Amino acid sequence: MSVLTSQDSTVRQRLDADLVEVGRLFAEELKSDLACVNELAEHAQRYHGKMLRPMLVLATAMAVEPGRERTGREHLTAAAVVEMVHMATLVHDDVLDDARMRRQGATINHLQGNEAAVMLGDYLISHAYHLCSSLGSSAVSRMVAHATNTVCEGELLQLSNRHALGLTEQTYFEIIKRKTASLCGVCCGVSAELSGCEKKVADALYGYGETLGIAFQIIDDVLDLAGDQATVGKTLGQDLAKGKLTLPLIHAIGACEGGGREALLGLLKSQAQAGVSAEQARDNAGRVREVLTAGKSLDYAREKAASLVQRAKLGLIENLEETAARAYLLGLADSVVMRKL
Amino acid sequence: MSVLTSQDSTVRQRLDADLVEVGRLFAEELKSDLACVNELAEHAQRYHGKMLRPMLVLATAMAVEPGRERTGREHLTAAAVVEMVHMATLVHDDVLDDARMRRQGATINHLQGNEAAVMLGDYLISHAYHLCSSLGSSAVSRMVAHATNTVCEGELLQLSNRHALGLTEQTYFEIIKRKTASLCGVCCGVSAELSGCEKKVADALYGYGETLGIAFQIIDDVLDLAGDQATVGKTLGQDLAKGKLTLPLIHAIGACEGGGREALLGLLKSQAQAGVSAEQARDNAGRVREVLTAGKSLDYAREKAASLVQRAKLGLIENLEETAARAYLLGLADSVVMRKL
Repeated sequence: MSVLTSQDSTVRQRLDADLVEVGRLFAEELKSDLACVNELAEHAQRYHGKMLRPMLVLATAMAVEPGRERTGREHLTAAAVVEMVHMATLVHDDVLDDARMRRQGATINHLQGNEAAVMLGDYLISHAYHLCSSLGSSAVSRMVAHATNTVCEGELLQLSNRHALGLTEQTYFEIIKRKTASLCGVCCGVSAELSGCEKKVADALYGYGETLGIAFQIIDDVLDLAGDQATVGKTLGQDLAKGKLTLPLIHAIGACEGGGREALLGLLKSQAQAGVSAEQARDNAGRVREVLTAGKSLDYAREKAASLVQRAKLGLIENLEETAARAYLLGLADSVVMRKL
Repeated sequence: MSVLTSQDSTVRQRLDADLVEVGRLFAEELKSDLACVNELAEHAQRYHGKMLRPMLVLATAMAVEPGRERTGREHLTAAAVVEMVHMATLVHDDVLDDARMRRQGATINHLQGNEAAVMLGDYLISHAYHLCSSLGSSAVSRMVAHATNTVCEGELLQLSNRHALGLTEQTYFEIIKRKTASLCGVCCGVSAELSGCEKKVADALYGYGETLGIAFQIIDDVLDLAGDQATVGKTLGQDLAKGKLTLPLIHAIGACEGGGREALLGLLKSQAQAGVSAEQARDNAGRVREVLTAGKSLDYAREKAASLVQRAKLGLIENLEETAARAYLLGLADSVVMRKL
């Protein structure tokens, strides 16, 4: 085992222990005296997945305070806060997308109706701010709330561009920067703030998180078009069904010519219609995938994500000293483009 | 003109001027660089109604700092925050209730779909916390977030009791205390905190706001059953349609005997069914109103509200010195039970 691997495994062990504590803080914050509330909140906790956002908070803290042996309470709390914000967005996203499956299980909206899902999302976001205010830092509260403002803007921009077959790459990137990357950026930014980093380093860390977040969303969009639903564990094909144009599709529309483009646009229109049957949808999705593969549009999107990941890594290398935690963050960025779920 | 009236009109004038500033802070906070976001946010601003919650913040500040001639920036900001929280709950409530009309206009969900309404509500609540964190007081952020936690619990408790024809008065009061009264309580509590009140006075003010909030919701529920839709300006009859038992109905079910009770329960069940026609619903609602009138159930609810208002007023009289602002708060409590909209 190389020295680097051994250091890396130390980071991983500390992260694993920290994530257990984050899960405990998360569950504790959500506890209510009402059984009906606890039941819903417990269901939501099955949505814990890769815990990317808490890991960004925790690994950033390790990277900027390499001399500190244990993660402080304030970073653990911040990690629980960002996971709670993320989970609130998942719950409301599933309402927006009519999704039936999440993390290999039924969604709240599918099980209990949209109304319970809307309220559960509100409950989660409210508790996220409540927990955040326990940190006693108005600056951190302000950063988290600014990120959620931006996430909502991204969602609204996406919503106003549903069925917009002329969506440009520029608007696509604006949407995903806001709806996904702003929260990833703030994970690192908040962690840096709590560690008292100087502005230049804090900005570089925010940039790393944000750039990684953009790459993450591109891959999410690729998986929605071409992933294996059993592996990914959530309803796929939702972007096509909801008329959301993502990077591979934008590329394919631009790359096709003449009759090919007309055929693709026709497929996309038909796929986003309310009355399309499940069989027809599967058939259409297969044909869209063929066009994407033939035009190398999936590769195009994956390469964009890979080049963003390189940029994110460079920002870290230029601004942080070489530590095992920094190596971990670099590896985390790579894993974003390699992931199959 | 009596001295009291002249003092009262001075309070009213200052409040009117303050509310203009609150509206300005509100609009400024919501401004985005995205046109699609501004368009929705502007629509939501048509929902400004009685501005009860900002008035609670502002009049409380005047009552506890009678020597201060102008309302401070922090109280104006807090007033904008509570109005924004309230508006977020209205927008999501309308989704939960499938409501089509609010403040004499179409609801967001009716105009733009549930998805835009869910996101707009999220945008409003996010900005409420963002604005709140600009106050630089973690205590205030914590109080506001605690109130929104409680509001969500109330909504979830109500949701889990839909179609529960055996709902007790106790659970009804638990629901409305959480979903409505907690925010009214915190309006006064936050104002007292910002004014540096001692705990006993702050608690009394919270209690005043909370008790007034309970009375307010009882009257809201009476109006939903027996109000005039054109006057109230929002979709009425929603509680019946959504299987929500409110105080007059709980009283009527308890007061009826034998066949009368069976008939009423039958009506309520039929009214809360998905497929009921508009004509049938109007007919049913008319028959429910007859039962409520015959059993004096509307009077019973109004009397409960009136006695709560008396209790709220007593709390103020015992804890605040006699000022024009205190008189205004006492009058505000009275207006809650007198209102027709």
